[in-house]
Amino acid sequence: MKTTVGILGASGETGQSIVNGLFEAGNFKIIALTRPSSISKPANQALAARGIELRPCDLSSTQEHLVNALQGVEILISAIVATEQLAQIPLASAAKAAGVKRFLPCAFVPVIPAGGISLLRDHKEIVYNHVKQLGLPYTILDVGWWYQLCVRKLPSGRTDYAVLNPDERIPGDGNVPSALTDLRDIGRYAAKVIADDRTLNKNVLVYNEMWSPLQIVEHWEKISGEKLERTFVSETELKKTIESCGDDMDMQTLMVKIPAQYLISWGIRGDNQPEYAKYLGYVTSKELYPQFEPRKFEDYTQEVLDGKAPQVYEELKAKFAEMMKK
Amino acid sequence: MKTTVGILGASGETGQSIVNGLFEAGNFKIIALTRPSSISKPANQALAARGIELRPCDLSSTQEHLVNALQGVEILISAIVATEQLAQIPLASAAKAAGVKRFLPCAFVPVIPAGGISLLRDHKEIVYNHVKQLGLPYTILDVGWWYQLCVRKLPSGRTDYAVLNPDERIPGDGNVPSALTDLRDIGRYAAKVIADDRTLNKNVLVYNEMWSPLQIVEHWEKISGEKLERTFVSETELKKTIESCGDDMDMQTLMVKIPAQYLISWGIRGDNQPEYAKYLGYVTSKELYPQFEPRKFEDYTQEVLDGKAPQVYEELKAKFAEMMKK
Repeated sequence: MKTTVGILGASGETGQSIVNGLFEAGNFKIIALTRPSSISKPANQALAARGIELRPCDLSSTQEHLVNALQGVEILISAIVATEQLAQIPLASAAKAAGVKRFLPCAFVPVIPAGGISLLRDHKEIVYNHVKQLGLPYTILDVGWWYQLCVRKLPSGRTDYAVLNPDERIPGDGNVPSALTDLRDIGRYAAKVIADDRTLNKNVLVYNEMWSPLQIVEHWEKISGEKLERTFVSETELKKTIESCGDDMDMQTLMVKIPAQYLISWGIRGDNQPEYAKYLGYVTSKELYPQFEPRKFEDYTQEVLDGKAPQVYEELKAKFAEMMKK
Repeated sequence: MKTTVGILGASGETGQSIVNGLFEAGNFKIIALTRPSSISKPANQALAARGIELRPCDLSSTQEHLVNALQGVEILISAIVATEQLAQIPLASAAKAAGVKRFLPCAFVPVIPAGGISLLRDHKEIVYNHVKQLGLPYTILDVGWWYQLCVRKLPSGRTDYAVLNPDERIPGDGNVPSALTDLRDIGRYAAKVIADDRTLNKNVLVYNEMWSPLQIVEHWEKISGEKLERTFVSETELKKTIESCGDDMDMQTLMVKIPAQYLISWGIRGDNQPEYAKYLGYVTSKELYPQFEPRKFEDYTQEVLDGKAPQVYEELKAKFAEMMKK
């Protein structure tokens, strides 16, 4: 008997990785909970073509609609867009009413403590607190920083097609190690985590390897034979940037404030590390799944160099490029 | 070699229980961190007479002063008054700088989730978040609801001397069990918890017995042979009361809002229960210390009936009585 998993945001990057991971595992029935207006979108039709049920789910609708949308869902995974974290509050209430056995609210970020370090993280905390007030069984699954965000532009231009994160500034002294994960492995981890009693009502950090920003730059230089610039950014400069932004989840916050907060958190504070995660109460993939074979950073970077890395956020990048033209 | 424990609020009710518990355990050197202006107060002089070092510690002073005040302190316990929770933020920073090995920020309340259920609890959460951002080793020690808050007035007046909580309203239907602890046992538990590696960077709930409000009323009737009134209060009424108060930590909040929030939390939501605590990530005294012999609620109530129960918050009660006369 397959476990029924409802996924919100199944057509997003994290959502796609999760869908792939659950498919590969084979023991899950997947339902993509989809905004009614988005059901006809190509990304969702691609899911349908793989045999995934597309079920209309409108987070702005009534509690009754949400409870209906969650009928039969045993495990609910939310990989909702960054700007919409708080829309998960009615979703969690509906999950409780619908008898969902485990809810994964949208975490899927590096390790960051609550309370002012990151606005995005603090939005998530509001959701986590609501889940805990409901007594809804949960797992908070954090994933470190993506390999896919560590592609550096090279003078030759060979890696341009795969650069997702145009901000190449090195935070602090560049020597703080950070937990990295291949986006494509997130779903493979998720398939294990959601079927594991040890992760119920727990925070879990899954990650592949530890790399510092300077190690990453040196690695790109080594495998490409090209020379890279190193531009450093201090905590003071980043804090100035952060202070210039507001607290609304608008485009400036998303494109400027949250990235700067990330740089301080994983790049200077060193939050995104397994020892700190354990201090915060996390269990990590290394203890849970010692047999798991994660993709290697060296393999990923070679894929990129060889022009074979799959693209990420293509749609977003296209929009961004269009915005820049205007 | 004795472990050096610094206690903030050592002359308060929780603080006194902790001092007594650490004394009884025998393996701790105790330092009472005392407001400079309060050192001459009788309660502090009574501590000094027991050989406890009184060390001036002014939370509103400089970081340098606080770091100095914490020299040699291995374990720091804060049992600061309810209204001053946020003053622990510079204290925690100083504890980190002074190399304190474990900080117990002021918890010492029933189990309550963060995020709007209780203003007092949410002030504590701000402190906990700060501690975790510092990476300071910590234990959050919650203690359930005191036996001493469960004394009922009797028609005969026999228990009047021991009534600490004049609010005898029964929340909801009165059938929600809640974790109760004898105030005098808190220190005995604390002496075990602070010397226990299993409780490092953990939330701990220590408690003696589970009782519902109606069971408590029935118990008083049984042992006294007197008949008690039952006045119920609904969640709606309590919420109205809560809404009539502000968010400042003033006298109204302390005497009206926080008590009403407690009634909803332990009396209606049922937060103050070991199963919910475990869901929230707590370990409890029952698993940690199965050999511990807690004081029995039946023994405490008999003590009260026999006129032999020690008084609690005498000073506070006297002030309150004076206020009422005006």
